Amino acid sequence: MTDENIQVRLAARPDGLPKDSDWEIRREPVPKAEADQFVAEVLYVSLDPAMRGWMNAGRSYIPPVEIGAVMRAGGIARITESQLDGFEVGEHVYGMTGVQQFMVSDGKDMQKVNPELAPLPTFLSVLGMTGLTAYFGILDVGSIKAGETVVVSGAAGAVGSIVGQIAHIKDCRVIGIAGGEKKCGYLVDELGFDAAIDYKSEDLRAALKEHCPKGIDVFFDNVGGDTLNTVLPMLRMHGRVVICGAISQYNNTGPVTGPSNYMSLLVSRARMEGFVVFDYAKRYPEGIQAMGGWIAEGKLKSQEQIEDGIENFPQVLLKLFEGGNFGKLILRNTDAF
Amino acid sequence: MTDENIQVRLAARPDGLPKDSDWEIRREPVPKAEADQFVAEVLYVSLDPAMRGWMNAGRSYIPPVEIGAVMRAGGIARITESQLDGFEVGEHVYGMTGVQQFMVSDGKDMQKVNPELAPLPTFLSVLGMTGLTAYFGILDVGSIKAGETVVVSGAAGAVGSIVGQIAHIKDCRVIGIAGGEKKCGYLVDELGFDAAIDYKSEDLRAALKEHCPKGIDVFFDNVGGDTLNTVLPMLRMHGRVVICGAISQYNNTGPVTGPSNYMSLLVSRARMEGFVVFDYAKRYPEGIQAMGGWIAEGKLKSQEQIEDGIENFPQVLLKLFEGGNFGKLILRNTDAF
Repeated sequence: MTDENIQVRLAARPDGLPKDSDWEIRREPVPKAEADQFVAEVLYVSLDPAMRGWMNAGRSYIPPVEIGAVMRAGGIARITESQLDGFEVGEHVYGMTGVQQFMVSDGKDMQKVNPELAPLPTFLSVLGMTGLTAYFGILDVGSIKAGETVVVSGAAGAVGSIVGQIAHIKDCRVIGIAGGEKKCGYLVDELGFDAAIDYKSEDLRAALKEHCPKGIDVFFDNVGGDTLNTVLPMLRMHGRVVICGAISQYNNTGPVTGPSNYMSLLVSRARMEGFVVFDYAKRYPEGIQAMGGWIAEGKLKSQEQIEDGIENFPQVLLKLFEGGNFGKLILRNTDAF
Repeated sequence: MTDENIQVRLAARPDGLPKDSDWEIRREPVPKAEADQFVAEVLYVSLDPAMRGWMNAGRSYIPPVEIGAVMRAGGIARITESQLDGFEVGEHVYGMTGVQQFMVSDGKDMQKVNPELAPLPTFLSVLGMTGLTAYFGILDVGSIKAGETVVVSGAAGAVGSIVGQIAHIKDCRVIGIAGGEKKCGYLVDELGFDAAIDYKSEDLRAALKEHCPKGIDVFFDNVGGDTLNTVLPMLRMHGRVVICGAISQYNNTGPVTGPSNYMSLLVSRARMEGFVVFDYAKRYPEGIQAMGGWIAEGKLKSQEQIEDGIENFPQVLLKLFEGGNFGKLILRNTDAF
């Protein structure tokens, strides 16, 4: 255990891709717990495309990270000092730890995690917000039914890879869109996708026509931009588009590319719907129980890419936007191990 | 009654706004009824923004009008000759008459109309497809509830003016977007809208903020383009966007302007949904009964703009795209009166 607390703070609101100068790496003393607080050492931090949105000013589904504040992040931490009843030294917690080595908390919105149930990183992927986003997004918003054709963009990413597996479990025909032969092979060979389209080497429209000859019932979109626009005219009657993200657009310096084919929603009597996983908080236990069961049965795999060093956050984050990650991207606080 | 049948046929697929050269005005002999057919003189023809879409090649919710064919249109006709049981000379029918003075029909998809129930043009407006589009669009797709804030674009148009009145009847707060002081005054003074925004002279965003300080629950969109994009970030939680049309985009020679703010659907957990009135065919009687009742109670007004001469169709149609109509635009076959 070190005696310093490396923190990654937001120094400036980025214009386009976040640059090193948008961040400040601060080294502070490890904080002390005051009354009704605990201090915990952060072990793993979740890296998510949504973080890019949190860095912008303006209205969104949660307030932006303030300039000068520790970057917001979900994480797993182990309590090192406690003055708070019910939180004991050595226990593991999940919550918004921030991108830092040590956090102080009053326990609010922090949940206990049992490290004997699953490897700790799993609580940031399949058994965490990522998995729950996939679960409620594809089942509730997407309302998939057995036999339907489901297309997932960002299919080798954290959420997309779980969405595709759930759709497969629910007896849908699943087509993933991902970048590169390795990712595409993995989706089909390891995760049970019926087909995968390499958007870097294939013509997306032609490939979708080949793999979805009857059209697309449900599109789960993590990517936006041209991908969304290409899919819209291929929706079947009463199709559904689940808007989970738009990673192709998060670092635009100009305006977002809107889906010019949105009138296909009329032609196909289809709907496009956004959601935020937090709205399903009361039903998290249902999702965790279902996905835990599928993991136990060997039907659902958790794929994580773990990188080292809290101070490397600015560079590792960029992998999300460059297609450099495979499954869930997690940063490990190496000093804690 | 004349002995010639003026027809408006599609001569070419338009690029942008339809030009005179995209049409052929044909004068043919009045057709004769063969066995199991009737001939009817068309009295009124419905002019609709959707017609522009029917003129394009390619997949849509109904097949395109073929080059050389009589332009598709809903209309009201009076039977002048009949060899078909159940259809008597002098009876009035509603259906796809086409833009012509006389039609031949086997009776399929033609409905009898009782001219004693309402003035004939009403069957093309409130009691026809226009009214039914408004009824099912705002009530079923929009799912409005009392107390919600409803915004309607193209509010002085055929569908929009009925949508706003229905929302008012259902105790919603209704804001219309229309072009010009006269239209806006009419919406508020005559049709019970709570406010109207003149997009030609007002800043739409500022005006919406003023009239919808808590945001927008339901947006019924006939216009698309910048209007849709401006509304999206102002949606309230679980807001709904009903996609009925996109008249601002129908004559684009370049690509449609997609709504770049579509990610607001995620922020607001909102949905954007298209529909086609034909899907509600089984429930038409419900809609007609409800709207007939509201008309009788004086709660729902039908506003029609009737223009003369089937042969003037090419020029009159353009009024729809230039904001030159007030309520339902109808063409009268002057020779029949």
